[in-house]
Amino acid sequence: MTTNLPSIKDVAKYANVSIATVSRVINNKPGFSQATLERVQLAMETLGYQPNKVAQALKNNSTHMVALSIPFIWHPFFSEFAFYFEKRLDAYGYSMLLSNNQSDSVSELKFLKMAKENKVDGMVGITYNDIEPYLSSKIPFVSIDRYFDTQKYDHVATITSDNFHGGKIAFDELSKRSAKKLAYVGKIAPFPNNTTERKRGFIEEAKKYDVDIQIYECPEDSLESQYLLDRVITNIESIDGIFCVNDEIAYQLIDKLKGTSIVVPEDVQIVGFDGFNILEGIPSPISTIKQSAKMLAFTAVDSLLTLMQGEQVDDVIIPVSFRQGDTTRTLN
Amino acid sequence: MTTNLPSIKDVAKYANVSIATVSRVINNKPGFSQATLERVQLAMETLGYQPNKVAQALKNNSTHMVALSIPFIWHPFFSEFAFYFEKRLDAYGYSMLLSNNQSDSVSELKFLKMAKENKVDGMVGITYNDIEPYLSSKIPFVSIDRYFDTQKYDHVATITSDNFHGGKIAFDELSKRSAKKLAYVGKIAPFPNNTTERKRGFIEEAKKYDVDIQIYECPEDSLESQYLLDRVITNIESIDGIFCVNDEIAYQLIDKLKGTSIVVPEDVQIVGFDGFNILEGIPSPISTIKQSAKMLAFTAVDSLLTLMQGEQVDDVIIPVSFRQGDTTRTLN
Repeated sequence: MTTNLPSIKDVAKYANVSIATVSRVINNKPGFSQATLERVQLAMETLGYQPNKVAQALKNNSTHMVALSIPFIWHPFFSEFAFYFEKRLDAYGYSMLLSNNQSDSVSELKFLKMAKENKVDGMVGITYNDIEPYLSSKIPFVSIDRYFDTQKYDHVATITSDNFHGGKIAFDELSKRSAKKLAYVGKIAPFPNNTTERKRGFIEEAKKYDVDIQIYECPEDSLESQYLLDRVITNIESIDGIFCVNDEIAYQLIDKLKGTSIVVPEDVQIVGFDGFNILEGIPSPISTIKQSAKMLAFTAVDSLLTLMQGEQVDDVIIPVSFRQGDTTRTLN
Repeated sequence: MTTNLPSIKDVAKYANVSIATVSRVINNKPGFSQATLERVQLAMETLGYQPNKVAQALKNNSTHMVALSIPFIWHPFFSEFAFYFEKRLDAYGYSMLLSNNQSDSVSELKFLKMAKENKVDGMVGITYNDIEPYLSSKIPFVSIDRYFDTQKYDHVATITSDNFHGGKIAFDELSKRSAKKLAYVGKIAPFPNNTTERKRGFIEEAKKYDVDIQIYECPEDSLESQYLLDRVITNIESIDGIFCVNDEIAYQLIDKLKGTSIVVPEDVQIVGFDGFNILEGIPSPISTIKQSAKMLAFTAVDSLLTLMQGEQVDDVIIPVSFRQGDTTRTLN
């Protein structure tokens, strides 16, 4: 790419000072008079000169860029997260470098490498791949949903939704609506993360009330995975309430149920987890445990900026709540 | 941020060569023996040294970053676009800097400025703000949905969906399904863009068949805008087929109709424009004219890379097609 942008040399010539003087003005170093300052500023404005941030980054060790690695921007929950994340970063004068990591850990490592080479100031990752490369780098890193030893890694912080409590609420809301024959449906990620707490919260709460839970579960990438929902359908007569580990599985299940005589929520009630909107102001019709993408994103940015200042940050847990949709009965 | 990453000096010391030699190896400049090459490579591997791309960018005038400015990543059509955009960029070894510009032209200008200062290699914009700042910069720029004088700006290319043909198809599909009392509903963006062709295609096609169209329209940011759909509802008895300029308005209209005795698609049929998925593999239930986010994104990347090589690029128009949902009758 060739440009006709004015250089620092042009500014020096126009202002009739040395290049070193222009550089001192740009970098706020002492050694010039008020008159020189004004002459250089006038020259920069007249010529439309913009200090090269890439060059400055070498000096300041900052590019004002932050990398966000998420599974899949083409998912309404992650796109809402990315929206608020960029909004918050922008307010602090930072830009967002975004990458998708789902089903391609190679691409994630490439991104991490590139991010390190470009010297982004920090990274945030919602990643269900191997997290080790993030930890072994010295880059300030905020992890969503994945915990690790913060004693060992003081440049890292974790933020999650209150997944355990979410699971409990799912049980309570189904119980309130008279569902008695309950099932849990979920997939197991290759690297364990905090979303497994959703299942644990659901089961713990059921135990408290002496209710048995049918578990339908399989590893995410297994062949079995495509038959998981068929197994649920096969036993659907023995189920009247289902907690799905996320809204995506809830949607897929509802789609499968369309081929049967089972009616939602009359015959079976379904609660998902995530609570995204289809479009702004138009919530998805699924009854769900809603995570706050906005709170997660804002907190991730704030924690990262603190880490970037060399300070340690406490892990944060964000509350969740039940959102009534069309897949559970209305309470009187 | 402080790091303990090895420097070029550490590599030179470890390999027992000068810094200049290490630099020659990194930048593929002649002037070293095979034995030196191997010693330097071994030193870099052993120390985990990564050449600093920010520093290299100064030399090569490339950061391998591309900026994407879209209205609102938290919209399923734009998030699908951004997904494919990043995927394609990644295949070429580029990263994506993403920003939201909707309802905040200041933020867009800030982004443009930052992008220029960071020396991204190129930009792609889906923007309904003032496009002039993009054109006046010398950065290779691909515009989605907005045209301008490519004679004047040879570093710019435009990509759109075939909006005009989409409008025609919308009329044809409603007609085929016996809708006779037709209406168009849309909002007018402050800066005209190619999406106005949707309306024109719809009306031109109607003229061919001597069909009158009721037009419900208002400026996007006007006070009137919140009453636009109420005006449609007031006259709904005189309408049996509606073409909405996008799926978002179609969704909002369907939501409003829930408060009436009108049933979709029995009493009134609705066709939108965009054709997004709610989740992967789960299309939105609206009958719509589908744009290919994937084709738009891939073409945008390919055109941009060509511009970045200093070559001119023809504008591209991507075909659209009708997708049957729940808001039009099924054809026998």
